[in-house]
Amino acid sequence: MTEELQRRRRTGGRSGNAQRRGTAVIEQMPWQPPINTDRPTEPLDDAGVAAIHEGAMRILEEIGIEILNAEALDVFRASGGCTISGTNLRMGRDFVMEEVAKAPPEWTLTPRNPDRQITMGGRHLNFGNVSSPPSYWDMALGRKVTGTREMCANLLKLSQYFNCIHFIGGYPVEPQDIHASVRHLDVLYDKLTLTDKVAHAYSLGKERVEDAIEMVRIAGGLSHAEFDASPRMFTNINSTSPLKHDEPMLDGWMRLARRGQGLVVTPFTLAGAMAPVTLAGAVAQSLAEALVAVVLAQLVRPGAPCAIGTFTSNVDMKSGAPAFGTPEYMRATQMTGQLARLYRLPMRASGVCAANVPDAQATWETSNSLWSAVQSGTHMVYHAAGWLEGGLIASPEKFVMDCEILQHIQRYMDPTLTRTGPDEIALEAIAQVGNQGHFFGIQHTQDRYTTAFYQPFLSDWRNYEAWEAAGGIWTAQRAHQTFRDIIASFEPPPMDAPIREELADFVARRKSEGGCPTDY
Amino acid sequence: MTEELQRRRRTGGRSGNAQRRGTAVIEQMPWQPPINTDRPTEPLDDAGVAAIHEGAMRILEEIGIEILNAEALDVFRASGGCTISGTNLRMGRDFVMEEVAKAPPEWTLTPRNPDRQITMGGRHLNFGNVSSPPSYWDMALGRKVTGTREMCANLLKLSQYFNCIHFIGGYPVEPQDIHASVRHLDVLYDKLTLTDKVAHAYSLGKERVEDAIEMVRIAGGLSHAEFDASPRMFTNINSTSPLKHDEPMLDGWMRLARRGQGLVVTPFTLAGAMAPVTLAGAVAQSLAEALVAVVLAQLVRPGAPCAIGTFTSNVDMKSGAPAFGTPEYMRATQMTGQLARLYRLPMRASGVCAANVPDAQATWETSNSLWSAVQSGTHMVYHAAGWLEGGLIASPEKFVMDCEILQHIQRYMDPTLTRTGPDEIALEAIAQVGNQGHFFGIQHTQDRYTTAFYQPFLSDWRNYEAWEAAGGIWTAQRAHQTFRDIIASFEPPPMDAPIREELADFVARRKSEGGCPTDY
Repeated sequence: MTEELQRRRRTGGRSGNAQRRGTAVIEQMPWQPPINTDRPTEPLDDAGVAAIHEGAMRILEEIGIEILNAEALDVFRASGGCTISGTNLRMGRDFVMEEVAKAPPEWTLTPRNPDRQITMGGRHLNFGNVSSPPSYWDMALGRKVTGTREMCANLLKLSQYFNCIHFIGGYPVEPQDIHASVRHLDVLYDKLTLTDKVAHAYSLGKERVEDAIEMVRIAGGLSHAEFDASPRMFTNINSTSPLKHDEPMLDGWMRLARRGQGLVVTPFTLAGAMAPVTLAGAVAQSLAEALVAVVLAQLVRPGAPCAIGTFTSNVDMKSGAPAFGTPEYMRATQMTGQLARLYRLPMRASGVCAANVPDAQATWETSNSLWSAVQSGTHMVYHAAGWLEGGLIASPEKFVMDCEILQHIQRYMDPTLTRTGPDEIALEAIAQVGNQGHFFGIQHTQDRYTTAFYQPFLSDWRNYEAWEAAGGIWTAQRAHQTFRDIIASFEPPPMDAPIREELADFVARRKSEGGCPTDY
Repeated sequence: MTEELQRRRRTGGRSGNAQRRGTAVIEQMPWQPPINTDRPTEPLDDAGVAAIHEGAMRILEEIGIEILNAEALDVFRASGGCTISGTNLRMGRDFVMEEVAKAPPEWTLTPRNPDRQITMGGRHLNFGNVSSPPSYWDMALGRKVTGTREMCANLLKLSQYFNCIHFIGGYPVEPQDIHASVRHLDVLYDKLTLTDKVAHAYSLGKERVEDAIEMVRIAGGLSHAEFDASPRMFTNINSTSPLKHDEPMLDGWMRLARRGQGLVVTPFTLAGAMAPVTLAGAVAQSLAEALVAVVLAQLVRPGAPCAIGTFTSNVDMKSGAPAFGTPEYMRATQMTGQLARLYRLPMRASGVCAANVPDAQATWETSNSLWSAVQSGTHMVYHAAGWLEGGLIASPEKFVMDCEILQHIQRYMDPTLTRTGPDEIALEAIAQVGNQGHFFGIQHTQDRYTTAFYQPFLSDWRNYEAWEAAGGIWTAQRAHQTFRDIIASFEPPPMDAPIREELADFVARRKSEGGCPTDY
């Protein structure tokens, strides 16, 4: 009970009351996707941007991309602008740029709760949960285990609870206690009932994609026409680097393109492994692979809402293991941002680390990656909370810790911090205090002190003695307690009973039909 | 022995051999103070910069600064440009700007080893050790204790060992087992024999300052004229915010100004406590306090090398405790950078946190503060390694961990990362690998793999299973082992025996004279 008492003392009476209402375990920032007011960090000069663009275009013109989807090849062939040789696809830069120009520079994603709409493009910055780890780690277990539906649901609850999580990515952990043929149905049901934020669909087979489309439509209470009218969900596909797009990913991509839904393509170009060891080459290759998918979407439906993702990082050249949040990762992300702006496409980056547990290494790697996302002008930050071991582990402690950093970024972008009006220069207050007193008690402070500064929910700002007397709890352990408290008091967002029933009926019917094939 | 074995396996044979030579416990980056190639992050527009400047000027013109040093008041009086009423000093903006313009925008600091010269100004970025905590914490102790000479010496050894530490600040921990009257003599002896990097002197009484000057001169083998010819050392003074400079700080400031040494003034303006709760007001006040000291230095010796420091942060409005590495701290640092560039003065910032132990909170707070130093165009980063509990604790584990982040920053600034020549775009390599193979084995990779990517010395990039099999060691514990290994194998930099004897004789003589008074 010591930790519990300590937490209560820290969060105070108001929070205590709210907690009894069951919704406010912590005092967090309101829903408020930040507007990124910083000028992007641009390590490339104009010649550098032109050189990478030239590299990407020459890859498309001279080397080509392998397209392992017959339907997609037909689409490219019908366009009249491509050279196809077997499965190798090449296209000239004029054609590429003409098609890419049809993609909107800014678009919205509207989930079943329209108040949780997010915008891709402009200066908008949105954070999503960790997606797709097969394994799970928490401090109570103290070891890595295979993901389950309960773990997945708990991480979905965290994703809904934290206002600094603006969209839901893939499964926050792969629930391997559900058979793969029906897993998507159960997790989508959990996702759509436990959260009301923008949802994602895996492009892993037509049945999964079509089921996801249908469930998102039902959850939103939408007709098919209403669903098709604007993006309500999105997919994220990865090319099979180097220079290849596989069948199911492109299938899902085209299905969502036809329905006008959000499309994010993220090549996984690890420099030195699936891409050149030089960052400029890895970025050029990544862009070539991504642009092919953008062109395909525009051929399927001109104006389809696309975004370019970056996952360019480096490997550990000693072991070949992927590394994340490195200096090279930061620069590659910033460079990709410069090129995404050249193509006038929204961008996706990530919050990532190689660390195995939520310790200091995990924090500096994640912090580096999140800030480089900010610096690159990224609009969608995947894996922004909860990722460990290069994406192989999801951790609720790491999730809670990352949300503290995400709130830092949100607060950092609050324009009130850098206001310079007379009230902020505060000459009268300075004159009033003079050189003797302090500013605690004066009216200028009293008028502002409740909102003047960011209040962390996880950082412990007490001095050492007070911190020690309360048990000397390190950050990850505090995060574990916060995780448990949030889960214990979680209340799902409201959903009309008929819609919930329709969703459940859909899941039951599709299960009775056997779900989807699992042969790839 | 498990940890030791594990570490050896990690660092490999080459490192093992070097270790037997006693100098290379880890493979670290070479001495290479970074050139900051990023455009500074500038949250203020021109009107914002002008408004803060106007605020600082009006503080100096209308409110004034309390100067508790009679000699300094005489200097200001003799200038003919000031209005003095008792100890209150006011001055017009034309006078301020005229004097500030005499300060050089760029200057060097040359320690006894001239290869360790650093530059203040331009795009130069230099990191220093934690300075002045009264207490110490390490993982073996597991508790906060009073600093001793041995702890201080160990932290000096870390400061010398790490090439990413470019200058030595104040005592890395206050060694309270030495009487205050002679403490400066012993610690300066340790500092000047255990390190060969730029040294600092506390401005805490004329005897301490004069002793430090003399010891740095002796350590450098310099005549008085040689010493006076260019900056060999520096002091850092703090104003007593709000709006006050005290006697001993200004005494040391003027003594070093007369000798042409480096001068850094850092007001400690905690918004909401010693400065307005609004950041723009706190920054304006900080600048006014700092500029007064710069003017004084120019009056004492026109062209005296000065820098403006920022320590503007916010308090926890619940407890009044100082907070560090907050979003507000980051913005205040960036805003100060914009004004330092307006005044064409080099700038100092810090690597700081409120956390009590080297955990995730310590890392995100420190990371935020270090990156904001980078973003502000700072030239000198105080406390860049080893700081905990708002500066009350020095920790060797934190020191080692921070050096990993500092190496990230150094590597991040390496221009090879963002090169875009034909060798980096690597079209031939991309064509060679095509869509089937991987890049590990090809010549383009083989030619570059040893230097292509940053190699961390503390991050563990193994997968979970390998990491767990090796003991499952979290970052702070790994840092503890690195600390112990470095200390065990430390070899001080060379110093000629006659110089070492002269230093020892000086210390003995000054001790026999009773050291310095300790009545303030």
